[in-house]
Amino acid sequence: MHFDLDQLFQKSDLIPVIIQDVETKDILMLGFTNREAVELTLKTRTAWFWSRSRQKLWNKGESSGHFLHVEKVVTDCDTDTLLYFCRPDGPTCHTGARSCFFNTIMEEEQ
Amino acid sequence: MHFDLDQLFQKSDLIPVIIQDVETKDILMLGFTNREAVELTLKTRTAWFWSRSRQKLWNKGESSGHFLHVEKVVTDCDTDTLLYFCRPDGPTCHTGARSCFFNTIMEEEQ
Repeated sequence: MHFDLDQLFQKSDLIPVIIQDVETKDILMLGFTNREAVELTLKTRTAWFWSRSRQKLWNKGESSGHFLHVEKVVTDCDTDTLLYFCRPDGPTCHTGARSCFFNTIMEEEQ
Repeated sequence: MHFDLDQLFQKSDLIPVIIQDVETKDILMLGFTNREAVELTLKTRTAWFWSRSRQKLWNKGESSGHFLHVEKVVTDCDTDTLLYFCRPDGPTCHTGARSCFFNTIMEEEQ
């Protein structure tokens, strides 16, 4: 499956990556990636990101041990966003929660 | 459920929004939103975005009729990303596909 990674970074050097649990389909987190982090992800099969706050590459799990094992990488119709289907080693959120998305702002009454 | 929307836009005027199908849990698209688009989304219960290419607000479905009905809005641990759980009226992608995420770059062999 050949794909030219340059296609992803035509509009911006940094694009969003959605992390979805390959089993439960829950969204675990969203990060940003540059080209180098995508290359490292494809090579190591664990999720790498570009940290905007620390201005450095990071391999999710490098300090916690909770790596995200990437089983599938998909891009969208205009190739400016990535979706990684992952198998997490443990909680993804730094708070210890399984997913970073736990703050509900609005919910329809059923 | 009170939530101060200012919290979302402390780092940037524009943040990513993941659109997840409330039934299938598939990711349908990713867009960007500013504060006004979030307010319109909460008011109309359909997804609004800020188009970076056209530099304008848009209500997904305004031309296609395929609105995204927002049933739940969640933010992440550091309140810089949104997740909308939606019920789509029709295909979400402009190509006619149900989801914008259909270009597989890598897939593990089982």
